[in-house]
Amino acid sequence: MPDGGARRQGIALTDRQRIAWLRLIRSDNVGPATFRDLINHFGSAETALSVLPELSSRGGASRAIRIASVGDAERELETARRLGARFIGIGEADYPPALRQIDGAPPLLAVKGHPPVAIQPSVGIVGSRNASISGAKFAAMIARDLGRAGYAVTSGLARGIDTAAHRAALDGGTIAVLAGGLDQPYPPENISLLDEITDGHGLAVSEMPFGWEPRARDFPRRNRLIAGISLGVVVVEAAQRSGSLITARMAGDFGRLVFAVPGSPLDPRCHGTNSLLKDGAIVTTCSDDVLEALAPLSRIEAPSGAVIEEPGGDDGGRAFLPPDDSERAMIVSALGPTPVDVDDIIRHTGSEASAVYLVLLELDLAGRLHRHAGGLVSLAMTD
Amino acid sequence: MPDGGARRQGIALTDRQRIAWLRLIRSDNVGPATFRDLINHFGSAETALSVLPELSSRGGASRAIRIASVGDAERELETARRLGARFIGIGEADYPPALRQIDGAPPLLAVKGHPPVAIQPSVGIVGSRNASISGAKFAAMIARDLGRAGYAVTSGLARGIDTAAHRAALDGGTIAVLAGGLDQPYPPENISLLDEITDGHGLAVSEMPFGWEPRARDFPRRNRLIAGISLGVVVVEAAQRSGSLITARMAGDFGRLVFAVPGSPLDPRCHGTNSLLKDGAIVTTCSDDVLEALAPLSRIEAPSGAVIEEPGGDDGGRAFLPPDDSERAMIVSALGPTPVDVDDIIRHTGSEASAVYLVLLELDLAGRLHRHAGGLVSLAMTD
Repeated sequence: MPDGGARRQGIALTDRQRIAWLRLIRSDNVGPATFRDLINHFGSAETALSVLPELSSRGGASRAIRIASVGDAERELETARRLGARFIGIGEADYPPALRQIDGAPPLLAVKGHPPVAIQPSVGIVGSRNASISGAKFAAMIARDLGRAGYAVTSGLARGIDTAAHRAALDGGTIAVLAGGLDQPYPPENISLLDEITDGHGLAVSEMPFGWEPRARDFPRRNRLIAGISLGVVVVEAAQRSGSLITARMAGDFGRLVFAVPGSPLDPRCHGTNSLLKDGAIVTTCSDDVLEALAPLSRIEAPSGAVIEEPGGDDGGRAFLPPDDSERAMIVSALGPTPVDVDDIIRHTGSEASAVYLVLLELDLAGRLHRHAGGLVSLAMTD
Repeated sequence: MPDGGARRQGIALTDRQRIAWLRLIRSDNVGPATFRDLINHFGSAETALSVLPELSSRGGASRAIRIASVGDAERELETARRLGARFIGIGEADYPPALRQIDGAPPLLAVKGHPPVAIQPSVGIVGSRNASISGAKFAAMIARDLGRAGYAVTSGLARGIDTAAHRAALDGGTIAVLAGGLDQPYPPENISLLDEITDGHGLAVSEMPFGWEPRARDFPRRNRLIAGISLGVVVVEAAQRSGSLITARMAGDFGRLVFAVPGSPLDPRCHGTNSLLKDGAIVTTCSDDVLEALAPLSRIEAPSGAVIEEPGGDDGGRAFLPPDDSERAMIVSALGPTPVDVDDIIRHTGSEASAVYLVLLELDLAGRLHRHAGGLVSLAMTD
């Protein structure tokens, strides 16, 4: 039995902080990485919000940055309340512990259902939407056994393998990660399954705003959450170039275990899983293959430092000396369309790290910065 | 295209030597390892035959050792000739080069068909007798592609995967290794396939005497030849505890590549192959997986020294001083039912290596020695 977690410690956001966090993450050009840098630089979401217009304009934005209003945030919180959902901030006790550790973890998660599932050690089970009967059966078997062993099963509520895994994990605990808002589940035929999940030992999770209809590009973003929440991901059946392989690749990038179920080379639904095996995924033919590999990992350690440093109250922002115009111009000119490491920019320009990060934030908020894997950045070439 | 081998050099047995070799290997208590030790110790099969009765009696045999007569050997050679078969000695140019390198390689192989196939680089393809349609199809695809790439396909003429592999390799070259004598093919329904093999670009091979009906224990022995002839073995479908897994294990022991085709964990015919994958076999979903892994190995080097040193003529035996009775007793008493390394016996007793080997040969010929993997030996406990 893995360590389901003695009640975890964490920060607790005040209502006022939660509104500020929600406003900040819902504002234009603010993704999880920008959010983190803003809080780390300005000490709180509220201070960050107050400087956003100036930062964005200094970064060269062609028009005023759209900032979510207090009213917008209160309306979203009210929608959540009405639907029985709420928001968990990164660093709070209920935030999925493994997810906290990935780059670009969502600062706020909308959740609905049985909150303790979020801090259970979890395994992702994903696969083809057009699963074979035996694939669905296998997914269900693994999900049931993982549940009995104390793991929650995380998946994407899709047809096929996802559905089989969620359904078999209803008793043991399951997390459905949605690509759209919590009130926009997809596909429609799984709405009743989602209700069973949230009414029972399960949780629905989304980083997207209520009302957000999922588009194609939201699914890979969602898959990163499945991989991030999970200690390992089991891919049961997957075609080449499928979303399940994206989830597996992200799991590998996060240092999570990747399990793949072998299948006939003559069945296209197994081409992706067999490729994963060639790339070193763990050959998985029974639940013990998963349980044995996970055993040493199930006591996941909370990171020593908080990922986002917002203290209990607002400390009024850090002291910082903003760079002057010539320094700013030098930092911008060090950037180009080729992704570079931020440390290289600091070394190359000789500027203070805090000055470089601030200029990058300004460019980011002006929509002029691209962030790449491994912390690299490049200048967006607009025309 | 692998190196099919410029015509290889080798020893050429005289008719008289071939008869002596056949007599020696067909005599009681003489297996491949004993044969090798006898030739290496006494310089020729003829000399070895002359000392067999004395050695066996000194080893403590309860009755006279049965030695195949010149008449026996001439009759077997005549049977072979009548059936269009002949015997190849280890070290002769036509002997399969990879097989030469294994421990316990047969000193003489009976072969029938197209001899150049024996020295083609070869890949084993084995699997379930009750193969699935897709398994048989896959075996045929791999066999055909290997043939096009210049490899011969070695298998065991069994139903299912073996049959599919041989049939698809009729053009490219195929070797059927029989568990019984060349005139005792099994199963009966594959006799016509065997005829197609030996009439075309194929070869039937056996180490067993003509007339020998295969028994259960002859199949694992035969599987060692499939593994020994092959640079790698592809296992297409295999249940747990199946002969195909024995072939794969032996291939691994010989340092050959082991390929396994993934399959559904819910199909018992894939349990063995999936286990092989867990143990590190190469995930095989197309012929390129096999061809790419084999490419660096296809130019197999002939071993620098001959495995069995029988010079062109008989050198009259090596000078050797047989141990006296007290030394013999000391060597025998160093042995017990627990397998030990011959080097340890030499160190323990302080005897000359040649004396120890001679005493071991005597015990062996008296039926009192067991030989184990890795060159270990133990005393047979008879009562």
